[in-house]
Amino acid sequence: MTVYDFPVGPYPTRVRIAIAEKKLQAQVQFKMVDLYKGEHKTPEFIAQKNYSGTLPVLELHDGTLIAECTAITQYFDTLDGAPSLTGTTPLQQGIIHMMSKRAEIELLDAISVYFHHGTPGLGPSVELYQNPEWGFRQRDKAIRGMHYFDTVLQHQPFIAGAEFSMADITVIGGLVFAAIVKLEIPAECRALLAWYERMKQRESVITQPAFSS
Amino acid sequence: MTVYDFPVGPYPTRVRIAIAEKKLQAQVQFKMVDLYKGEHKTPEFIAQKNYSGTLPVLELHDGTLIAECTAITQYFDTLDGAPSLTGTTPLQQGIIHMMSKRAEIELLDAISVYFHHGTPGLGPSVELYQNPEWGFRQRDKAIRGMHYFDTVLQHQPFIAGAEFSMADITVIGGLVFAAIVKLEIPAECRALLAWYERMKQRESVITQPAFSS
Repeated sequence: MTVYDFPVGPYPTRVRIAIAEKKLQAQVQFKMVDLYKGEHKTPEFIAQKNYSGTLPVLELHDGTLIAECTAITQYFDTLDGAPSLTGTTPLQQGIIHMMSKRAEIELLDAISVYFHHGTPGLGPSVELYQNPEWGFRQRDKAIRGMHYFDTVLQHQPFIAGAEFSMADITVIGGLVFAAIVKLEIPAECRALLAWYERMKQRESVITQPAFSS
Repeated sequence: MTVYDFPVGPYPTRVRIAIAEKKLQAQVQFKMVDLYKGEHKTPEFIAQKNYSGTLPVLELHDGTLIAECTAITQYFDTLDGAPSLTGTTPLQQGIIHMMSKRAEIELLDAISVYFHHGTPGLGPSVELYQNPEWGFRQRDKAIRGMHYFDTVLQHQPFIAGAEFSMADITVIGGLVFAAIVKLEIPAECRALLAWYERMKQRESVITQPAFSS
């Protein structure tokens, strides 16, 4: 299988962590798509790999393409049940999907919009339209999101409850992106900060290029 | 189980269709939350039901809350396998989740942003901040999305392949919202229009309040 990838990118990092958690590294090759050159926005990439022009994208042996981190994670997770990243009961699946989506809306995607609209983003040749006011609002939303996830983590060890899951990976993606745009986790978010330190002790997380500096 | 609902809302309609497809109507009661009165944005609703301040939200017998249409659908679908809305093989699950997410990004969520930012939306007492320029860009993105899904449907009977799935429901949600904001499906999108006529022949779809006029 091939993953179209930008190794330090927050979204590709989500799928990289999922692959490492599932111990599927030997079955996957990574192919670099240079975001800063806009290679994900070329007509060819959009027509042939992903209509939405985003990374990562998984390509199976027969050429089938699966885009979107949640979908790729769902695919890997259903291939092989252990460890489960998306839950094994209806309740777990519902909660994990909810919390992962919430982490996108309230944190990761919000920071992505801030990056592309409120900062130089990928540079003037890629960022052909920017709406800074929208970007700044999304930055503020992401800060509120950090406080929300801090509150969640005051009551449970992981984002979706008692076990590590896809929802933790999504929040990790959000905090990877926060570091790129220099958005600090507020010091009072002690539960979130402590959780992030625990996450960085996982081999699947700390071995990712996003964490090497 | 209780679903916090606004009966004609595009997102609530997604969960209503899923419930009807799964024949779970007798197990669910709907509780109205009036979007036009901003009841979904009150501090109480946000603190007690859904941090993101959106509908629908599913509340289980024990008080557990599941927000986000995809998560609620995943919950219902895992409760009872037939008919499957989210797929039974890894490949189906991956493709259905991808296409549903794509339908959110490229169609439904884009129209939602247009509604809230490029039109009066829910009215001045609810829409406390609007960014019309961003709204209009999302409207244009949604029109492009209609052309994309038209192309998809030129090659296969349903949004995610050979079977009806959650991804079809998400596109239906998008077209329900398109009608609310008077965004017409371009006449040249014949495959999309024909698919939508077929969707409206499903009892789970046509019996929804969004389709009674």
